[in-house]
Amino acid sequence: MNRILYESDERKNGRVYLRDGRAEHIRTVLKAEPGDVLRMGEIDGPLAEGRVVNLDENGVELGITPGECPQRPCLDLLLALPRPKVLKRLLPQISALGVDRLFLTNAARVERYYFDSHVLDPLFLNKALVEGLVQSGDTCLPKVKVLRKLREFFEVDWTDTGCWLLHPGVDQSLLTAPVFRPRQLLAIGPEGGWQAAEVEGFLAAGFEAVHLGKRILRSDTACICALGIAAAKGESYGRS
Amino acid sequence: MNRILYESDERKNGRVYLRDGRAEHIRTVLKAEPGDVLRMGEIDGPLAEGRVVNLDENGVELGITPGECPQRPCLDLLLALPRPKVLKRLLPQISALGVDRLFLTNAARVERYYFDSHVLDPLFLNKALVEGLVQSGDTCLPKVKVLRKLREFFEVDWTDTGCWLLHPGVDQSLLTAPVFRPRQLLAIGPEGGWQAAEVEGFLAAGFEAVHLGKRILRSDTACICALGIAAAKGESYGRS
Repeated sequence: MNRILYESDERKNGRVYLRDGRAEHIRTVLKAEPGDVLRMGEIDGPLAEGRVVNLDENGVELGITPGECPQRPCLDLLLALPRPKVLKRLLPQISALGVDRLFLTNAARVERYYFDSHVLDPLFLNKALVEGLVQSGDTCLPKVKVLRKLREFFEVDWTDTGCWLLHPGVDQSLLTAPVFRPRQLLAIGPEGGWQAAEVEGFLAAGFEAVHLGKRILRSDTACICALGIAAAKGESYGRS
Repeated sequence: MNRILYESDERKNGRVYLRDGRAEHIRTVLKAEPGDVLRMGEIDGPLAEGRVVNLDENGVELGITPGECPQRPCLDLLLALPRPKVLKRLLPQISALGVDRLFLTNAARVERYYFDSHVLDPLFLNKALVEGLVQSGDTCLPKVKVLRKLREFFEVDWTDTGCWLLHPGVDQSLLTAPVFRPRQLLAIGPEGGWQAAEVEGFLAAGFEAVHLGKRILRSDTACICALGIAAAKGESYGRS
C-alpha cells in the first residue's frame, strides 16, 4: 500500500481512526508502532502524514498533518462500457494512471446487460478506483458518469479539450499527435471497435482519430496503452 | 477471433482439419459455409487464407493458401515473474502487443512459489500467448525463457540491443528515449520494484534506466504501458 487513503468524513479533529483492512495493513504489513509516521492522503483532498497515536487489535488512530493538494489529472476518459469482468480489472488501473473524469458509455457493440452489473454500483466503483489511487499514491478520485446513451456525451461542452478518438487504421498516431491544453480526452471503443456512424458522430463533435499502432488490441489493453502514452506525453512535454 | 491460427503440424497436403474450439467458432460465430474464405495463419509461419472445404458437427476442413510471413517483433521483454494470477492475465496482452523473446526471471521481490505455478507449464504458456496472437492477427509466438536466477540473464549477449530498465524516479522517460536498432529490450521489475543491487547489475550490463511518468504503476500496468509505448515508437519512427 503506497499511501493510506481516508475519506474527509473519517477525519475528526485532525485524527482518523481506522478499523478495516487499512488498520490490518498498518499493523501486520507495515508493522507500525506508536510514533511512526505513515504516508497518507485524503480522497479528493491533500496528501498527508499520519502519525500513529494508538494501535491495537480494534484499530489504528492517527494524527493527520495535511500537505499539498495534488493537481487533478488533466486527462478525461470515455470508455465504451466493457464486460463487467474486464471493467472490474480495469478500474484500479485507470485511477492509477490518472484520470479526471471517466465516462462509461453505451455503443452499438456494448451488450445491454453490462449496464446491470454490480460493478457499476457506486460503492463498488469507488472501492475499485480507490484501490488504484492507493497504489499510485494520488488522492484524486476519477469522477464517474455512466451514460446509457452515447449521444448524451455529445451534448457535453468540449471546448478547451483536445478530444482523441482511438480508432485503428487511421493515419495519425496518438504517440506523435500534439498535446492539447489545458486538458485532453481519450475515447476508447468496445471490443470490435466503434461503428462507422459512431466514428462520424465523434468526428462531427470535433474529435480527431488516432491509432495506437498497426496491431489490433483488446479494448482494455488499448485503454491502458492509450492512458500511459497520453500521461507520459503530458508530463514529458510540460504542463501549460 | 481476428485470425484463426494453426500449428504447422496441423497442416497436411495444404489442408487443416480443426475439431476444437476453433471449429466451433467457425461454425457458430462466423457461421461459415463451404466456399467461404477465412483469415488464418500458421503459428511462427505465414499468414494464410483458409477456404472452407467441409464442415459439420465433427469439425471443419479448410484448404490453405499461404501468404506473407510477418516480420518478428523487434522487441524483447524481461519480466520479473509476476504472481501466477497476474501472469495469466498478462500473457495474451504481451503477445498481442508484439514481443519476440520473453524472459521470465527471478528477482529479490519475486516469491519463490511463483515458479511452481501451472501458468509456467509450456502448454499453458503457449495457449495463453496464442490467445493474444489470435486477437491481434499476428502469427509470431513469443519465445519464452524462464530464468530461475536473474544473473543467467546477464550472461546473454545483448550486443545490438537497446536495453531499457524501467525504474521510477530516474530522469529519462521511455517516451522520449531514442529508438535503438535493430532491436530493443524492456526490463520490468516486480511489485515493489527492483532492488538497488539489481539496478546496479542492469546498469553494469549496459542497460539505461527510464521511467514511465511520475505515477507509481502496478508492474502489470507498467508492462502494458511500456510495451505499448515502445511498439508505437518503433512504428512511428520507422524501422531500420
